[in-house]
Amino acid sequence: MNGRLFTFVGGDTGEWQVTGQRSVIGDAWPTPARIALRAGDGLAAPALPDHGQEQPLWRLRGVTSNDRYLTRPEKQSLAARQQGLGRPEASCAALIPIRKSAAWWALTQDERREIMEEQSQHFRIGLDYLPAIARRLHHCRDLGGDEPFDFLTWFEFAPEHGPAFDQLLARLRASPEWRWVEHEVEFRVRRG
Amino acid sequence: MNGRLFTFVGGDTGEWQVTGQRSVIGDAWPTPARIALRAGDGLAAPALPDHGQEQPLWRLRGVTSNDRYLTRPEKQSLAARQQGLGRPEASCAALIPIRKSAAWWALTQDERREIMEEQSQHFRIGLDYLPAIARRLHHCRDLGGDEPFDFLTWFEFAPEHGPAFDQLLARLRASPEWRWVEHEVEFRVRRG
Repeated sequence: MNGRLFTFVGGDTGEWQVTGQRSVIGDAWPTPARIALRAGDGLAAPALPDHGQEQPLWRLRGVTSNDRYLTRPEKQSLAARQQGLGRPEASCAALIPIRKSAAWWALTQDERREIMEEQSQHFRIGLDYLPAIARRLHHCRDLGGDEPFDFLTWFEFAPEHGPAFDQLLARLRASPEWRWVEHEVEFRVRRG
Repeated sequence: MNGRLFTFVGGDTGEWQVTGQRSVIGDAWPTPARIALRAGDGLAAPALPDHGQEQPLWRLRGVTSNDRYLTRPEKQSLAARQQGLGRPEASCAALIPIRKSAAWWALTQDERREIMEEQSQHFRIGLDYLPAIARRLHHCRDLGGDEPFDFLTWFEFAPEHGPAFDQLLARLRASPEWRWVEHEVEFRVRRG
């Protein structure tokens, strides 16, 4: 198993309780009561023959990977301020699955970089919300399966930073980069 | 199933007969009699209970994906000259699995681009051998499994272009980019 693989499982169990869900762009996605974040493929060990296996509403897999767009100075700016997942005070989180259009993926590397950073300031916007908003990006597009999304982004923050997180999302969604997003769903969760 | 997923199956069957194998960098890899190139995960339909299932020596999976480094002018230069797989005269082929080091993947995008193109002229070297040498790149690193290689590159050419292909490989392997390769195996095959 690849140690960079993670699975979000939407169902009746899991450490994160769903407090809200929005279809931001495109089709709705089933809303579970809870979301579990699991290392690996999220498949439980085989149930004993007499025990039913939990049937989740959905599973979304993704791998963390090398940076695709950052320059060294940008990476250093982020690394100097960002914090990891699992902070005790970060009891709020959000899962945002996104698919970009075929036209986006047909762009060349320099064209995508130009849109993401020079036009949309994607990383500079994120920097404004560090260290409050922790983030981990998972890639799905090259998993080899028939994945419904290209990216799963997971954010963690303390309750008092909820308004700042709303502002972060609003700024990103207003940017030119978002013209290339064809499906986006948002799940808000809290621990417990 | 993702339509960009392909599997190379090394074993006793398959349309490509192995005519040579080299461990270029790092450990050897088992040499099969034949290699099959399959769309999808390369798993045959389930055998009937009384029939044995073919057990290949190895399976290597990869997905074609968006370009990671090309600029628009470079992509246009390649597109204007390159040809597809499956040309009748291209009865020779090569499969070259490669893994790059952890240090490579820790580089930022601009640093990797600088090494690949400005220092190593990776794409410009490839351009010198078009349209004779057709090429398809498959990515393995983000498949989510425990893949032994990061890339599988497949080349097809007519027998008279074998010496040109040898030269292409020699030029790439002499470039600064290859300092970051920690495992490379080469299989030469011919159709039939």
